[in-house]
Amino acid sequence: MFKESLQKVVENVEGGVASLVMGFDGIAVDAYSKATNGPPLDMNTVGMEFSFILTQVRKAAEILEVGALQELTLKSEKLIMIMKVLTPEYFLALAMGPEGNFGKGRYLLRIIAPKLQVEL
Amino acid sequence: MFKESLQKVVENVEGGVASLVMGFDGIAVDAYSKATNGPPLDMNTVGMEFSFILTQVRKAAEILEVGALQELTLKSEKLIMIMKVLTPEYFLALAMGPEGNFGKGRYLLRIIAPKLQVEL
Repeated sequence: MFKESLQKVVENVEGGVASLVMGFDGIAVDAYSKATNGPPLDMNTVGMEFSFILTQVRKAAEILEVGALQELTLKSEKLIMIMKVLTPEYFLALAMGPEGNFGKGRYLLRIIAPKLQVEL
Repeated sequence: MFKESLQKVVENVEGGVASLVMGFDGIAVDAYSKATNGPPLDMNTVGMEFSFILTQVRKAAEILEVGALQELTLKSEKLIMIMKVLTPEYFLALAMGPEGNFGKGRYLLRIIAPKLQVEL
């Protein structure tokens, strides 16, 4: 149901590694990981760590009265992550290598989000 | 010392509201807030909330073995925040309104970061 959209995002962005739809409780609805030569990224574990972070950021946004959280991104030495809130219960995440195309990743998530939101 | 660089970023990006250099312990080194018609954003409080989040994200990055955190951004209904790690002790943050120019904000932070790093 979601796999096709998740795969489309990963395969169409430079540096795309994996993507998933996950609940804020850390339970994945669906995920797609690209086959790589190196050790694969455990997207489920990554998503779980960030479901906790996203919950913290939502609480911070509430305290600061800056409205509902829409997007969180991070860049580390080996990973680019873009997380998009789909509904109050679910978020969409894309993982890319450090050379990934950040702008295109964000664009692709924006394109598939409405389709996923209808299904959730 | 930092004020001039912080002001330059805020004044040169569409939607720029405030910027600061802060320790991961939540203590600000310097900050600049633009005069606005509406209620001003308390950048010190915003920075403190996010110093906590950044610390959580750094821990997550360590657990996931994805290398050192370099950048964290978020978008909510009323706020865009871009945070850039300067040193293991300090980070740089820019707050913009929701209509802010995300790409230009990131670019300006990248430009001033080396100058600030030398001073820290």
